[in-house]
Amino acid sequence: MPASSQRHMNIGLFLYVPGNHHGGWRHPAAEPEGDSDFAHYLRQVQTAERGKFDTVFFQDTSAVIGSEAIARGDKGWDHHGRAVHLDPVSLLPALAVLTRNIGLISTATTTYNEPFHIARRFATIDHISKGRAGWNLVTSQVEDEARNFGASEHMRHGDRYARASEFYDVVAGLWDSWEEDAFLHDKANGRYYDPDKLHFLEHKGEHFWVRGPLNVARTPQGRPVVAQAGSSEAGREMAARSADLVFTAQPTPEEARAFREDLRARLPKYGRRPGDLKVLPGLMPIVGRTDAEAEEKMEALRSLLPDNVVVSALGRHTGGVDLTQYPLDGPLPPLKPSNSAKARQELLVDLAARNNFTIRQLAHYVAFAGGHLVVHGSAERVADLMQHWFEAGACDGFNLMFPFFPAPLDDFVDLVVPELQRRGLFRTEYEGTTLRQNLGLPVPDNRYTAARKAGHGANHKDIA
Amino acid sequence: MPASSQRHMNIGLFLYVPGNHHGGWRHPAAEPEGDSDFAHYLRQVQTAERGKFDTVFFQDTSAVIGSEAIARGDKGWDHHGRAVHLDPVSLLPALAVLTRNIGLISTATTTYNEPFHIARRFATIDHISKGRAGWNLVTSQVEDEARNFGASEHMRHGDRYARASEFYDVVAGLWDSWEEDAFLHDKANGRYYDPDKLHFLEHKGEHFWVRGPLNVARTPQGRPVVAQAGSSEAGREMAARSADLVFTAQPTPEEARAFREDLRARLPKYGRRPGDLKVLPGLMPIVGRTDAEAEEKMEALRSLLPDNVVVSALGRHTGGVDLTQYPLDGPLPPLKPSNSAKARQELLVDLAARNNFTIRQLAHYVAFAGGHLVVHGSAERVADLMQHWFEAGACDGFNLMFPFFPAPLDDFVDLVVPELQRRGLFRTEYEGTTLRQNLGLPVPDNRYTAARKAGHGANHKDIA
Repeated sequence: MPASSQRHMNIGLFLYVPGNHHGGWRHPAAEPEGDSDFAHYLRQVQTAERGKFDTVFFQDTSAVIGSEAIARGDKGWDHHGRAVHLDPVSLLPALAVLTRNIGLISTATTTYNEPFHIARRFATIDHISKGRAGWNLVTSQVEDEARNFGASEHMRHGDRYARASEFYDVVAGLWDSWEEDAFLHDKANGRYYDPDKLHFLEHKGEHFWVRGPLNVARTPQGRPVVAQAGSSEAGREMAARSADLVFTAQPTPEEARAFREDLRARLPKYGRRPGDLKVLPGLMPIVGRTDAEAEEKMEALRSLLPDNVVVSALGRHTGGVDLTQYPLDGPLPPLKPSNSAKARQELLVDLAARNNFTIRQLAHYVAFAGGHLVVHGSAERVADLMQHWFEAGACDGFNLMFPFFPAPLDDFVDLVVPELQRRGLFRTEYEGTTLRQNLGLPVPDNRYTAARKAGHGANHKDIA
Repeated sequence: MPASSQRHMNIGLFLYVPGNHHGGWRHPAAEPEGDSDFAHYLRQVQTAERGKFDTVFFQDTSAVIGSEAIARGDKGWDHHGRAVHLDPVSLLPALAVLTRNIGLISTATTTYNEPFHIARRFATIDHISKGRAGWNLVTSQVEDEARNFGASEHMRHGDRYARASEFYDVVAGLWDSWEEDAFLHDKANGRYYDPDKLHFLEHKGEHFWVRGPLNVARTPQGRPVVAQAGSSEAGREMAARSADLVFTAQPTPEEARAFREDLRARLPKYGRRPGDLKVLPGLMPIVGRTDAEAEEKMEALRSLLPDNVVVSALGRHTGGVDLTQYPLDGPLPPLKPSNSAKARQELLVDLAARNNFTIRQLAHYVAFAGGHLVVHGSAERVADLMQHWFEAGACDGFNLMFPFFPAPLDDFVDLVVPELQRRGLFRTEYEGTTLRQNLGLPVPDNRYTAARKAGHGANHKDIA
């Protein structure tokens, strides 16, 4: 098989400014003032594009993280470098016009948005980027957000997913409002569009009534890429039905493989092939020119973390528990099931049990990458781990996290990317101009065009 | 007085792609395919910046215009060049990073949005543009939109304004969440921010409960510029309280002057000076190298308008009436008061009476610029009209509309701008780097910083 057609990894940059590591912003080479500076975001995305990454990905929270705890009077939150950042959905268009190939994915919650706005915004970004937009569909997991949208109590887990599922249907439906060849621009006869190729959605469901049509033309990708991160049963089913990409936290290749196979097995019932869904576990690589240099970098990062900061962060990751009242060198206490971050709580409880971690040890581990895998070492060692996971069928690639920016990302692009390319595990040039092309994902049919082609033109839902 | 400190006009580009004139897209030089092409939008904004315009301004509707009528079965809407466009709030960040001086204003409705999202998005655009963002606060006037947001009946006029007013309070409050010097980035002591300079809004009103704080730092302009366009009593009071810019449709300099003086007279009760609010009537200039050439251009535009298109559009402007059932060469029938576009209906009824227009004549007039003033002629003639209005105190400048793009805008920038500059009526270079600086508007104080400076530090509303 020629190298060019060999299956290779997909790599995303998880761009969490000023860094994923809780103390990363304190590193002498970190740039915390970049949290409000577009140039700082742009520089990282340009580095990722130099490294031929598939995508940059932004998480999102519509609140100051920790505001619930700060309002309660908890101290220590001013240590966190997570207070402010630029709205990622607004960053995407600006990044789009200053890059050429990299995919641009942002989170937007289904819990506190309207589907018409989300459909419209991501369709527009797909046009501006000429086919590189992606939407990470989430349900809101943070109590902090509810208080900014008039909700005094957080929606129950099941309700959030029911709303999310219907939300997705509306968004995907609106993206089919106009067929690809709907616009005539026929100046002589005064026909701007062909009314037969304009479609009203007429959605009336439990959570939404949306008539449509969307006021944006069909986009270069047909439909922007959809990413998800839920790993509960409801989250998996939702992903199998609707996601192109899944971001996940997985502790071992065996568990990752089981998760990926579980997802892939759910695809056929939705008329999809296993290759139509890419699974990218999170990974924080700390790269040195030698293993010893990487160990020094780890030590420098550990030294930036006061216990109170990491323990309060761990409390958030495990569902809002105040762990500071327990002995830090004792075990994790039994936790009541979390409504807000179910799967992440289970992952961490499991991680603590498996490694016999004290609260302090678990907190320091989690402070690096929120429970995601951390690997440190030379480029060869990091590439070995990535190759092992990839070849074991544990993943389709990785969503990479960095403790701060820009140095650790530069190290990865300068040292590990060439090593992966030498091994034939990663592209040396982009395959196409759209995110779907680079991910090897199909362009979805417009439902009405498909119905017409199948000879059912008269039967499609359309009141035009 | 030196020329540099002379009061001059403020000029905005009303960028309504593919053009404000209903048939403009059919002109041989028009580019209707630009409706979904970022490069088309960018080119017009770059031309406006070459012309030293203060701002570009985007109107917005969260619906395909006319969808209510199309769903009813009305024909002829496919003639309209208004079916799709790129979401303006998503265009702004992309335009920001490819321009340097021009202000960037987009409409976003208070009727179908959440204030936290709007505060966050425009604050981010203010950061990305380094102080050139503006928000045009509107209440939704189009029934088409209600159907995309689960509302079966449109909110009554009074309710829309009550919500808008409270919406503004929440947005402005969130913009004060962080004082300007809140961020310490103190790596040695692990202090990212000063908790005393972080403020919770704790807003609990009739329409919104929003705690805050906003997760975006204080912006370069302190507060993005706020524009409004309402001219009803409620709209005027709201503008006097909260707007920096008012867009308006005015038929004569006398009425424009009365409108502007009415607005300015309302400012002192909100602690504002008359110069703190700029009034920009809409104006469509059709410029020729000679008056005769301009007349030919007018004729060419008139020839692009079939009666059914202009009459159905007039029906929308007058509040959703089907005027095609009346004799087109007869007078406008009595209309029931419009809920959706009250002031515009009054303006048009008045315009028809004053000019003794038939339905057909009024429809053709309105098809040019929706009832806004149209002037055609040589650069001198267009400049004469602008000078007359400006010097009569009828306005602070104009929001310029064009029948299509790019040629008529190019004509204005190449022919009229130099004439205005020769007369000392318009800048030859930008005064500053922010929109507030170019408009000559003050930077608002952060309420908490102001309270601290006034010695009331302990009294400000703050639960941190």
